[in-house]
Amino acid sequence: MKSFEEKTLSTEQIFTGKVVSLQVDEVELPNGKTSKREIIKHPGAVAVIALTGDNKIIMVEQYRKALEKNIVEIPAGKLEKGEKPEICAARELEEETGYACSSMEWLMSFYTSPGFADELIHLYIAKGLYKKENPASADEDEFVSLMEITVEEALELMEKQSIHDAKTVLAIQYLQLQEAMVGK
Amino acid sequence: MKSFEEKTLSTEQIFTGKVVSLQVDEVELPNGKTSKREIIKHPGAVAVIALTGDNKIIMVEQYRKALEKNIVEIPAGKLEKGEKPEICAARELEEETGYACSSMEWLMSFYTSPGFADELIHLYIAKGLYKKENPASADEDEFVSLMEITVEEALELMEKQSIHDAKTVLAIQYLQLQEAMVGK
Repeated sequence: MKSFEEKTLSTEQIFTGKVVSLQVDEVELPNGKTSKREIIKHPGAVAVIALTGDNKIIMVEQYRKALEKNIVEIPAGKLEKGEKPEICAARELEEETGYACSSMEWLMSFYTSPGFADELIHLYIAKGLYKKENPASADEDEFVSLMEITVEEALELMEKQSIHDAKTVLAIQYLQLQEAMVGK
Repeated sequence: MKSFEEKTLSTEQIFTGKVVSLQVDEVELPNGKTSKREIIKHPGAVAVIALTGDNKIIMVEQYRKALEKNIVEIPAGKLEKGEKPEICAARELEEETGYACSSMEWLMSFYTSPGFADELIHLYIAKGLYKKENPASADEDEFVSLMEITVEEALELMEKQSIHDAKTVLAIQYLQLQEAMVGK
């Protein structure tokens, strides 16, 4: 693997927020020239494919201020400081859906926007769901509504571009591939 | 669809860069309380599944400063001001791989990080590739190396987490589903 490493010459910290921070790095390129890189630092997140007993996927509809609209996503949320992804996955599932699960399996981790951000999402699949009696509630600034839909319904929503969130598309494709492999 | 719209009370512009800008919005929540939202604005991007005559996928390996490492992705790049996605897709394909194509088909568009960014990626599939004699060259601060791999090789790289970029995983699963459907 050829390396095109960019040496950091200086870092300017622009903003440190609750969710993201922003820095601008001056870098030395492989050809010796310099350039600037705008970089968003994010704590990382989890996303959960939560399957009910009748094989429906639990979806969360919520308003996303960055998009100025409601969108439909699988349950997800960012890691708290020092929190292990599998702990975060169970916490977010409970907070957003009210469910706990008997099995939480890691599937893969992926970067969402490597061109400008270091956000890494850890994707899990939760099975054996059961309603918690007194579930932990969501963050106080989080308002969500829930849907339980089949893979076929999810595909229809994808085709209409009503589901158009990368991690959610990726999750639906994963389930569709599982079905295709069982069908073989 | 229930709306949990958050009314913007004020916007503080923190940073305006070459790639991203950052603002903090103060919002009124559905329950009447207020909160702050950190929002990254991005011009949007394209990504291209480029298939060679022998059904290999063209992958681009490049250093991503945000991650401080090299990663393997499908060809992609951000929209220039006023640029149409299909024009951008052809341009990025040529700049990053040296190929033009006889067919460029839109597959879907998806948000990469709706929790904090408005980046929307338009995914295309390019077929009928041919080498351009004098291809437009990449941005002067962009250094990439190319690989041509089969879907099976891509899946192996995914399993080893050597491919771990959301749009690239999504593209590979798309191709795998196409194969599964043909196989039925």
